[in-house]
Amino acid sequence: MNSPEPRRRTAIGISLALLCGSVAASAQELEFDPEPHREDVARLVQDALSSGQAPAMLRRLCEAAPSRLAGSPGAEAAVEWARREMIRAGLRNVHLEAVTVPHWERGPVESLVLLGADGAAPVELAACALGGSVGTPNGPIEAEVVEVKDAAELEALGEEARGKFVFFNQPMDAGLEDPFQAYVGAVWQRGRGASEAARRGGVGALVRSMTQRLDDVPHTGAMGYSADVEEVPAVAVSTLAANELSRRLARGERVRVRLELSCRTLGEAPGANVVGELLGRERPEEILVVGGHLDAWDKGVGAHDDGSGCVQALEAARLLLASGLRPRRTIRVVMFANEENGTRGARGYHAAHADEMERHVMALESDRGGFAPRGFTGQFAPESLPRLRAMTALLRGIGAERMDPGYGGVDISPMAADGVPLFGLRPDPQRYFDVHHSANDTLESVHPRELELGAAAMATLLYLVAEDDRPLRRLPAPEAAR
Amino acid sequence: MNSPEPRRRTAIGISLALLCGSVAASAQELEFDPEPHREDVARLVQDALSSGQAPAMLRRLCEAAPSRLAGSPGAEAAVEWARREMIRAGLRNVHLEAVTVPHWERGPVESLVLLGADGAAPVELAACALGGSVGTPNGPIEAEVVEVKDAAELEALGEEARGKFVFFNQPMDAGLEDPFQAYVGAVWQRGRGASEAARRGGVGALVRSMTQRLDDVPHTGAMGYSADVEEVPAVAVSTLAANELSRRLARGERVRVRLELSCRTLGEAPGANVVGELLGRERPEEILVVGGHLDAWDKGVGAHDDGSGCVQALEAARLLLASGLRPRRTIRVVMFANEENGTRGARGYHAAHADEMERHVMALESDRGGFAPRGFTGQFAPESLPRLRAMTALLRGIGAERMDPGYGGVDISPMAADGVPLFGLRPDPQRYFDVHHSANDTLESVHPRELELGAAAMATLLYLVAEDDRPLRRLPAPEAAR
Repeated sequence: MNSPEPRRRTAIGISLALLCGSVAASAQELEFDPEPHREDVARLVQDALSSGQAPAMLRRLCEAAPSRLAGSPGAEAAVEWARREMIRAGLRNVHLEAVTVPHWERGPVESLVLLGADGAAPVELAACALGGSVGTPNGPIEAEVVEVKDAAELEALGEEARGKFVFFNQPMDAGLEDPFQAYVGAVWQRGRGASEAARRGGVGALVRSMTQRLDDVPHTGAMGYSADVEEVPAVAVSTLAANELSRRLARGERVRVRLELSCRTLGEAPGANVVGELLGRERPEEILVVGGHLDAWDKGVGAHDDGSGCVQALEAARLLLASGLRPRRTIRVVMFANEENGTRGARGYHAAHADEMERHVMALESDRGGFAPRGFTGQFAPESLPRLRAMTALLRGIGAERMDPGYGGVDISPMAADGVPLFGLRPDPQRYFDVHHSANDTLESVHPRELELGAAAMATLLYLVAEDDRPLRRLPAPEAAR
Repeated sequence: MNSPEPRRRTAIGISLALLCGSVAASAQELEFDPEPHREDVARLVQDALSSGQAPAMLRRLCEAAPSRLAGSPGAEAAVEWARREMIRAGLRNVHLEAVTVPHWERGPVESLVLLGADGAAPVELAACALGGSVGTPNGPIEAEVVEVKDAAELEALGEEARGKFVFFNQPMDAGLEDPFQAYVGAVWQRGRGASEAARRGGVGALVRSMTQRLDDVPHTGAMGYSADVEEVPAVAVSTLAANELSRRLARGERVRVRLELSCRTLGEAPGANVVGELLGRERPEEILVVGGHLDAWDKGVGAHDDGSGCVQALEAARLLLASGLRPRRTIRVVMFANEENGTRGARGYHAAHADEMERHVMALESDRGGFAPRGFTGQFAPESLPRLRAMTALLRGIGAERMDPGYGGVDISPMAADGVPLFGLRPDPQRYFDVHHSANDTLESVHPRELELGAAAMATLLYLVAEDDRPLRRLPAPEAAR
């Protein structure tokens, strides 16, 4: 997602040459002159590092609403936290925008037991229900396990899955530089493993956790059901448990497990996006959105995913306020509801602000963890790249200067249809899937300085675009339509 | 140390323009053509990530020699570990090169107690002896504490320090982007605090730990004594303990502490550098040194400092071997003895190989932690910069493309006098001082993928320089002399 594909690597030399060509040809033709802003950016960074508030905001969120999946009491507490934090930070027009969200709950029972063969004692495996899974309301399900290690093995299963749990055990590809790419390659198992199992007569899906870390912590995440097959339960198993299952199967053991889950879908529930603004001093009607999502999976406290994004968005605005850098245009902080299992917040914001979309100058999301920032990816007009890179070059001191075409973020993605340029903060990606959607996503796993550097990088991009006389080009039609 | 000083930031634009100028003028004059090497580098990275051995090597080191300060039994165990690992990795000419090292030991007693005022109970403070400190052989020292927050306050102390502990409490400057710079600005307190205290009649030094993390873990490190004043003991106190002391003093409390230390200097001991080679296929007599230091402070297991550097150096050579990329010149892995408190390994290697120095093509050290690599700093001829950057541009996919003038490493630094270009791996710097020289420097704090990416980056730089037909320019005379 956030790293260049192998083929793109060759573009580096070319784009450097292009950039250089224009520099060499005529220095005054630079689309953006960084010099007048150098000191402001240095000050933003220094303020963030020496007196930043993001770590304290994040601590308050994780204490007030440690569990905040859409529809839960914690989600309500998170909305109230966001409202108060925005007011405390000095934003204006702080308000809630109601949306309706799906409501799934895990409930108290979650047990996957490896049944001992030949009289051996049963062993509890580290597992958790995937988000959206049905439970086992008619009592525990006991069945044999059949393993598939990739899509081809799934296709080849034939009748072998009938009456069994299908164990999806394709690891994230460790050889890929970017774990996000590895995630994209493996997450189909989580998303549609249950229906693929059911389609073949399976009784449920056991899915290897989407992580490259070897530990005993299962990672949950969204799954969905195909309308044409039975809904069977799906759980994530820890990577260690997955390896153990796989080892036993490899040596020909007949592996049976018993699954019991109390999780269930409860229908719809009220939720809200939380919105606040740093009003532009000259063109307050022109808007830059910056945000993260307020909901989180319920196994950790969502400190990285996406507590970090929420507090970085707010901290970016607060840093600008505190440093007196009130830009020409309005910076609107949006903490979105229900990114994890419905994206109702994303769609709700887009629908509610449809008539404002042409005045949305850009949108920026942080939703890849609170790790040391390396720059941004974005969906923007190709012609904007040199100008954007001239802006982010100011972040070279903190190593966050990278600006490449790529993904923006789930919550801002509906705005692409209206031509709004979208950006995503790109933190160092190596540690994210260690914590993602799991009990490893703790407050302690967020480094305060890394978190603040991300906020400072976001504040910088927002400030430079919000202040620049010429708006960014809109997304061209093909991009907007895709 | 490893980031540009504020003033240098403006050099970015200039050097880009210079680089661009030459590119634009004549593409065929590029000093280094990356294209023929793109696939090799991609393979090195993929091998490192999918089948790298560095994490396993590091685990074995931390198990075999968790405590390995120069002169200790652990240091001997580390030497044996290194010898075996080099053989296991397939290096040739594996051997030890004897050096004599200073021998200081902490001993069993280490206690700093805050004596309760007005009958309150005494409180044990988190503290540890600085490396090289004298102990308290005549029994515990009890005295009042006087605080200084910077060098000016130290100068202004006058007679106030007489008979007291001087408490050096200047924090590392949080506002600086680069914690290494903040370290350089504060570490004088650790290095010469004891003698500065003694010079003013003080009985000892309490030094705020060199970290930006707030916790109860003291960070040790080297200190020295001026010949002209009495040798008084010096301890590091945790940042939380330092804040507590400072708060009490700020509210006018008379703060007394009792210090007891069993540490002592035992004279000299035998030690060794461990050396092994990947022999060059065409010019085996031309040498590229890559290394880290084998010794570590005794409070953690030295997983980052510098277990990571040692295994990355070896892993870089192993990756080249395993991938069949045996370069023209010889890659010599050196694990240096005694970096932390004597640099005898560094000086010993330089002296023992004096007649080979002109055939040393470059030296590379990793000694800033095993975190995600961002590139390199180095001492090299300015004319080499475009060529070096064209090489490291191949590391853009893993975000390790940066190449800037800067520091190489302590252990390789003597070679600068002979004109050898020096390089240091530059990992992301934000987490290093959380763990540096403390019990926080654990195996678990090293991320296996980050560690491997650093090794792959080192393998890449080594390979490209070792393979390139034209050697790097030697350091110009002023650099060589400084």
